Amino acid sequence: MDKMTFDKHTSAQFNAELEDARKHLMEMGGLVEQQIETAFKSLMEVDTDLATRAIEKDKDVNKMEITIDKQTTQILAKRNPAASDLRFIISVTKTVNELERIGDEAAKIAKQAIELADTGSGPQGYVELRHIGEKVRQMVQSALDSFARLDAEAALSVMQQDKAVDLEYGTAIRSLVTTMMEDPRSISRALNVMWALRSLERIGDHARNIAEQVIYLVKGKDVRHKKLEKVAEQVKK
Amino acid sequence: MDKMTFDKHTSAQFNAELEDARKHLMEMGGLVEQQIETAFKSLMEVDTDLATRAIEKDKDVNKMEITIDKQTTQILAKRNPAASDLRFIISVTKTVNELERIGDEAAKIAKQAIELADTGSGPQGYVELRHIGEKVRQMVQSALDSFARLDAEAALSVMQQDKAVDLEYGTAIRSLVTTMMEDPRSISRALNVMWALRSLERIGDHARNIAEQVIYLVKGKDVRHKKLEKVAEQVKK
Repeated sequence: MDKMTFDKHTSAQFNAELEDARKHLMEMGGLVEQQIETAFKSLMEVDTDLATRAIEKDKDVNKMEITIDKQTTQILAKRNPAASDLRFIISVTKTVNELERIGDEAAKIAKQAIELADTGSGPQGYVELRHIGEKVRQMVQSALDSFARLDAEAALSVMQQDKAVDLEYGTAIRSLVTTMMEDPRSISRALNVMWALRSLERIGDHARNIAEQVIYLVKGKDVRHKKLEKVAEQVKK
Repeated sequence: MDKMTFDKHTSAQFNAELEDARKHLMEMGGLVEQQIETAFKSLMEVDTDLATRAIEKDKDVNKMEITIDKQTTQILAKRNPAASDLRFIISVTKTVNELERIGDEAAKIAKQAIELADTGSGPQGYVELRHIGEKVRQMVQSALDSFARLDAEAALSVMQQDKAVDLEYGTAIRSLVTTMMEDPRSISRALNVMWALRSLERIGDHARNIAEQVIYLVKGKDVRHKKLEKVAEQVKK
């Protein structure tokens, strides 16, 4: 938390507790990043072992959610944080929630990989899947980096990327529907890819939500449900 | 909050603030219930006017999220709530978040209604859609009621219903896939119904999450990611 000044505390112990919460959040973020990578790889390579690993990782992610929430609740109860400390605790709590939901979506992607393996067909050739998957993974990483570095401009950039992903997602879905209509034998496989795309798009949304929390933390402004141009103005202020 | 004793406060003002947060949460819940009803009706009757109304209602839901979050943050900053007051604030914040996501899903259902209207076909005959829609609406209502009445047993029952909905959802999706394969001309329409079903299933998940918050509030136990039997034990303790 170098760039941001926590409120000066009489208690070094309080500082240590905040730092600890930050550390745990970043650990959870790292875990979720790995989970996305494993899930996505399991899908692209139709590898059920990898898929199983991604699904099992979800338990660790869930445990971290419980641990960090307990930690922040204790800080709230004992330390009565105010101003930027309070914003920090709130944004940690909300980010943890987003990370847990990203973990759920990663597990769903892995489940699609297992279904694809069952029907004996791979998603190779679905250029859009690889493309969107790569972008979304990058977004989660950037959102977490922007939290670690308290960088509101980087967070804004994640929000902008989400808009692009949503557009690409729409195009990819439409193209899959066309494929299904032209070749009904592809329906089952196309649906697996469609659900995986949906999960990727959702992960992008969650990354954007994390970015919103970073802006709240750094700028003290709640930018949820605001137009991107408005958010940009507030970040640049 | 009759059945639950808030910690005794020296400040009547503090009590009024907590009561106000509770009132706003219930208002937001009512708004979201209406939104689900409108969205669902728009889907079953393929009524674009109703659909548009459901989508517009999302703005009000989003505004309430911002308002209540501001309110709870102020209480945290000024009042330093502890014990059951703190649990109350935390569960309000988390419930608000779930309600906002339910609102998003309701808007997505309404969008499917508009797409169905474009292709000139209605979802009539999809018995599963009506059935699951009714169940999920009931779950949201029960979850909110259990919050208002601080009824952990009722909350547990919502969690149990979610399991049943997930199973029915799986069956409905499989039956739609069969329809698509048998009659490729139905693909587009079946996909609209599928996305709507997915949103309903998600709403069920969010209702379950609200129920988990009620148990946390009443029993002081974090039951997220726990097996239903374990949760039942903790509720009955």
